[in-house]
Amino acid sequence: MPETHGRRRAALRDSLTDAGLDALLVTDLLNIRYLTGFTGSNAAVLVHAGGDGQTLFCTDGRYTTQSAAEVPDLETVVDRASAAALVKRVAKDWKVGFESQHVSVEEYEDLRKHVELTRTPGLIEKLRLVKDEAEIEALRQACAAADRALDDLVAAGGLRPGRTELEVARDLEHRMLEHGSAEPSFASIVAAGAHSAIPHHRPTHAELKRGDFVKLDFGATVDGYHSDMTRTFVLGEPADWQREVYDLVHAAQAAGVDAVAPGVEVSDVDAAARSVIAAAGRGEEFAHGLGHGVGLQIHEAPSLAATGVGTLSAGMAVTVEPGVYLAGRGGVRIEDTLVVRAGEPELLTLSTKNLVVV
Amino acid sequence: MPETHGRRRAALRDSLTDAGLDALLVTDLLNIRYLTGFTGSNAAVLVHAGGDGQTLFCTDGRYTTQSAAEVPDLETVVDRASAAALVKRVAKDWKVGFESQHVSVEEYEDLRKHVELTRTPGLIEKLRLVKDEAEIEALRQACAAADRALDDLVAAGGLRPGRTELEVARDLEHRMLEHGSAEPSFASIVAAGAHSAIPHHRPTHAELKRGDFVKLDFGATVDGYHSDMTRTFVLGEPADWQREVYDLVHAAQAAGVDAVAPGVEVSDVDAAARSVIAAAGRGEEFAHGLGHGVGLQIHEAPSLAATGVGTLSAGMAVTVEPGVYLAGRGGVRIEDTLVVRAGEPELLTLSTKNLVVV
Repeated sequence: MPETHGRRRAALRDSLTDAGLDALLVTDLLNIRYLTGFTGSNAAVLVHAGGDGQTLFCTDGRYTTQSAAEVPDLETVVDRASAAALVKRVAKDWKVGFESQHVSVEEYEDLRKHVELTRTPGLIEKLRLVKDEAEIEALRQACAAADRALDDLVAAGGLRPGRTELEVARDLEHRMLEHGSAEPSFASIVAAGAHSAIPHHRPTHAELKRGDFVKLDFGATVDGYHSDMTRTFVLGEPADWQREVYDLVHAAQAAGVDAVAPGVEVSDVDAAARSVIAAAGRGEEFAHGLGHGVGLQIHEAPSLAATGVGTLSAGMAVTVEPGVYLAGRGGVRIEDTLVVRAGEPELLTLSTKNLVVV
Repeated sequence: MPETHGRRRAALRDSLTDAGLDALLVTDLLNIRYLTGFTGSNAAVLVHAGGDGQTLFCTDGRYTTQSAAEVPDLETVVDRASAAALVKRVAKDWKVGFESQHVSVEEYEDLRKHVELTRTPGLIEKLRLVKDEAEIEALRQACAAADRALDDLVAAGGLRPGRTELEVARDLEHRMLEHGSAEPSFASIVAAGAHSAIPHHRPTHAELKRGDFVKLDFGATVDGYHSDMTRTFVLGEPADWQREVYDLVHAAQAAGVDAVAPGVEVSDVDAAARSVIAAAGRGEEFAHGLGHGVGLQIHEAPSLAATGVGTLSAGMAVTVEPGVYLAGRGGVRIEDTLVVRAGEPELLTLSTKNLVVV
């Protein structure tokens, strides 16, 4: 996708001009992947405001073949000390920004020996807030891999009494690989029974039992983009309290999704879901934010939380994931990944949110 | 293992005293795991030279239960802004070091508003060079999981014509999970035929064919510790050139292992293996370093390379992994993870290094 990466670099050049910079030294590997498509483990890019013709890419000798294929459209310098090699090519009168939220103090002390650098955190992260169609397609595929894996797991009877949380997690992760995921998007959460009341429980050797809530929070990765989905099941016939909690979270999640639209304050999206839970007297039992941006990172901006600031824009990819957790008994979380669109948001995770009894 | 972590903190306090520091602000999560056992995703520690009684651990509200279990022996502050919360508790007259190779320029600019900090990179990494017995036991278990997975894979006919590199990689990774690995130690390399001549080939949909070299470089993770092993097989009867290259790498690897002992220069270990390959006129075809340290990171100090400096000490864990790569034809690498001991090193990866024809 050289033209996609070229468009992203053109957008960044506009930011550089706005910030009065001649160039930006890019050293964060995710930002480099975003701007160039390069997927190796050592690189730096000196993006010049004047255009791709003056922009330099640097990697080391291990990646010459790979970088020629992935980054055919930029002049490449081969040097193991990638960032240090590029700053040596900066002209004396350039004003050069750097990713000060990623560069360590020691790296900075080394680089500033060669050139004066200006702290410019977050320029590329700001562009990454709104996804282009290539990014959304990767997210769509990652979400589809997770949907299919869950479907297969349930169809194969993978959620049954006697299996351990760890077995279920590994089974699910293996099925995501079969459906095109490069790796799990994050450490899968499989939480049975009382464990489901722990928001970020890590799977254990505990066995699933009849009557348990089983909460699954997991994701796939395609082309570096992460999916994120949570579904909660009941093993066997649900008790009344389980139906009540499930229906409440289900309603809150739907209200949150309904509130997602361009121009809406992120705190208002949080409030739309949270008020449903609070109205049922369960506000204390929903103690985390409603959601987060998702893309090359599993957690990125914007934060959909009561304390979040800013508004949604079309093309942002976010999660909506309310939960209610009853300590010692069990909890429910329901989470989708979706894209903000004019009108209704586009749901990327399509597994049913109706209560599934397995 | 509170006593293990207490011993590590005591060793660090000696380093602080040597460096004239009253305290060290520790923010790198691997170093925090090393010093305290904490495995969550947000924490900071202010290690005081005066002892554990004055040392503070900080994490956020998600981890209160987990940190109480994992870090029972330190006073815990609960605050989402972990490092910033701890520097606010520093006395005016303390000299406080920080991990300047891990802290970003933006984080530093934020922290220095509260307290003056001194750049002290690598204090904990230096301690981590020599593994204690708890670490070696975790490495031993990780290596055993990889050994068993490989054994199972070969016994099940997992290396056969028609399978793809990706299928073999996933099969191997799944078997490591079954043998107690938490996750693959790094992105597994499965390289068949001409791909085996690419040192760090990533598995593709290419099928294994009769007559191919198949190179597997992979590892398991136990308690955060990484194993690393490479074995190269031949599918069917090996050709003469394959036997020649295999025997050469096998001899070089044995020479490298034999050279591993306390007090030996790391460059001399590299030379011991490299000279065997060079004497056969293949020096140009072994274009990477001989090995690296391994522990909480898959690649850590020391570097066993021609340009490496320093000597080995008993208790260091390193890999020895020479290779010979014939572009367009195929390559062989053989790699063990081992512990430097007085006398002979302790091999942790025990899979046979004889040429296995599958």
